[in-house]
Amino acid sequence: MTDVASRPVISAERYRERLAAAARIVERRELAALLVGVGPDLRHLTGYDAMPLERLTMLVLPARGRPTLIAPRLEGTPARSCPAATGGLVAVRTWEETESPHALVAELVRESAALGSPAELLGVAVSDTLWASHVLRLQEVLPGSFELGSTVTRELRIVKDAEEIALLRLAAHAADRVVDAIAVGRLVGRTEADVSREVRDRLVAEGHDRAEFAIVASGPNSSSPHHDASDRVIGPGEPIVLDIGGTIGGYGSDISRVLWVTGAERRGPSDEYARAFEVLHRAQATATAAVRPGVTAETIDAAARDVIAAAGFGERFIHRTGHGIGLEAHEDPYIVAGDREPLRPGMAFSIEPGIYLDGAWGMRLEDIVVCGPDGPDVLNRADRSLRVVAGT
Amino acid sequence: MTDVASRPVISAERYRERLAAAARIVERRELAALLVGVGPDLRHLTGYDAMPLERLTMLVLPARGRPTLIAPRLEGTPARSCPAATGGLVAVRTWEETESPHALVAELVRESAALGSPAELLGVAVSDTLWASHVLRLQEVLPGSFELGSTVTRELRIVKDAEEIALLRLAAHAADRVVDAIAVGRLVGRTEADVSREVRDRLVAEGHDRAEFAIVASGPNSSSPHHDASDRVIGPGEPIVLDIGGTIGGYGSDISRVLWVTGAERRGPSDEYARAFEVLHRAQATATAAVRPGVTAETIDAAARDVIAAAGFGERFIHRTGHGIGLEAHEDPYIVAGDREPLRPGMAFSIEPGIYLDGAWGMRLEDIVVCGPDGPDVLNRADRSLRVVAGT
Repeated sequence: MTDVASRPVISAERYRERLAAAARIVERRELAALLVGVGPDLRHLTGYDAMPLERLTMLVLPARGRPTLIAPRLEGTPARSCPAATGGLVAVRTWEETESPHALVAELVRESAALGSPAELLGVAVSDTLWASHVLRLQEVLPGSFELGSTVTRELRIVKDAEEIALLRLAAHAADRVVDAIAVGRLVGRTEADVSREVRDRLVAEGHDRAEFAIVASGPNSSSPHHDASDRVIGPGEPIVLDIGGTIGGYGSDISRVLWVTGAERRGPSDEYARAFEVLHRAQATATAAVRPGVTAETIDAAARDVIAAAGFGERFIHRTGHGIGLEAHEDPYIVAGDREPLRPGMAFSIEPGIYLDGAWGMRLEDIVVCGPDGPDVLNRADRSLRVVAGT
Repeated sequence: MTDVASRPVISAERYRERLAAAARIVERRELAALLVGVGPDLRHLTGYDAMPLERLTMLVLPARGRPTLIAPRLEGTPARSCPAATGGLVAVRTWEETESPHALVAELVRESAALGSPAELLGVAVSDTLWASHVLRLQEVLPGSFELGSTVTRELRIVKDAEEIALLRLAAHAADRVVDAIAVGRLVGRTEADVSREVRDRLVAEGHDRAEFAIVASGPNSSSPHHDASDRVIGPGEPIVLDIGGTIGGYGSDISRVLWVTGAERRGPSDEYARAFEVLHRAQATATAAVRPGVTAETIDAAARDVIAAAGFGERFIHRTGHGIGLEAHEDPYIVAGDREPLRPGMAFSIEPGIYLDGAWGMRLEDIVVCGPDGPDVLNRADRSLRVVAGT
């Protein structure tokens, strides 16, 4: 079932464009350099999916001149094998176990500042997910101001290109198949953790490189949005919220669906649950239909929230409506009150309203949606209804 | 094969002691508070294995008074369920999607500073793995100095207590069983990635909560220490480095062993490889035997390095000899030149020398060792020899 062969590939040319665009923003913001540690910004700019280690790996991207990727010596081979390095777009420099990589970064920043920018401009931007252990050490050796790397990379990453959308779509379809398989399988008498393991195995079997999360929240556990999966045994006559995802080529899937497990006893949903689900379904559809260029993120949030509030569940929708998705499971744009970002074609995000009655039950319905030129491009195709299944 | 029932449990009393010890260090260092984001410090102090999210979850631990765990509202249930919260050791306060959690932290820091410490002392320590997105935002609202949280938590975490060592031992034995199973299975004709998937499945089947890494480096790929697992097909007459690990109750396993796969052709190791392995084996054994209280970390590193250098492979041992292990896969103490930390009973770390001939072959042998009162307590028991297997 894996479609590895047909996977879109991000070309070296795209990395060249991204690095050049980042350098232009660094120059425009009068920064000496963008400093990118291991994480999504590094993967976006260089294709390097580096291991998250306490040893510093860092792309030093100055306003002018060739960027340098520094890596601990024992990561030299993978660092030199990343697309930006094999494409000659970045120089790779390794450091020894007994060297200070932070001093090395400072040296490179000073060199590049001396090259172009006025010498006094030693401000840098550091990637948002860089650890404090590196941030504070870099602050010791770099005297200028520090700002967040997203001020540089946000614009590059918030609108997805065709290859990125193709990867998101592949991942969405793979996750759809997992939901469908779980819905028709045995559920009653199994623990949430056991079903969660099956979800993870299936995410990989369906083509994901990695399973990232597999929330299986049954009965009262469904009332906690981020309940993971416990040793609770799934019984007849209760709901299950599935919220699952993995990555393909770095790009994530993220889908939530609700099952109602009747068991052999055929214990269907209560009227209260069925009615609330109808509201949730309508809220999710309404928000999705509102997606088009120029509409703000907070308008999409309000579209879902208004439907739920009108039905009397306003206080039960305790989180934002969605989050952007790409190389991070959660990234800009956030679909939340106060975010006046106008949507643009190519933005990708979740639409996932939920209703939660503390300690009793919960429900959430989630798709990944790309803003198309005229309206929503919904990547997930799995049935959105409350799936009433025997589960036996 | 899981031994969940016999797992040691960290008691509420231990969390109370840890929180009290951390508060004493905060006071002694004249800090206003220790600020702990999601990660190993948070788990160590509260037992909370929080999801790594962009939304801030943070323990604010002042020198005096009750610590507060702040969490986004939708993480309220898991936050209130952690051992430190159910034990009444921390107050839990949730924040809404439209609030600034950083301002909330600043408020708590100011309140606690006003309580006890002189008002001008607003220095804080932030946990080492806290993201830059939080560090820089906290720096905007907190005027005092920032230092690394490890200056407070290092002492608490570097010596493991009996329950922690029991968890490390459980994890080590589970990983031993995985190595043994892989060594007797089919290898020739399979891809590294396929074997790696089997390793991950077996790590979980043997009792790990999570498989964290499963390096399968065959033939020339073995010459890159952190080669992961590729689509390379394993052939007859070549080495495989396995370097695998997962976590049990948060505590990690990490073992490296070397297989030589002969295939049906019975192509055994070259004299060069066999000779180098003998050196490696001796280096690992020598370093392990040198472990005892009072010996410095760098002495252990030198013990391994001297053996390898004397055999002419000094330049081929391109990394430190080991790293501490606990709630992090890599943590203090590091077994590296320049680290003069004297070992103490209860310190746990890897001893993993390696020899790498760039592009040709590599080898690494790794155990987790606890410093005992009189010498090494080697947690792994799997055979350390070069295992020559048919692999068919």
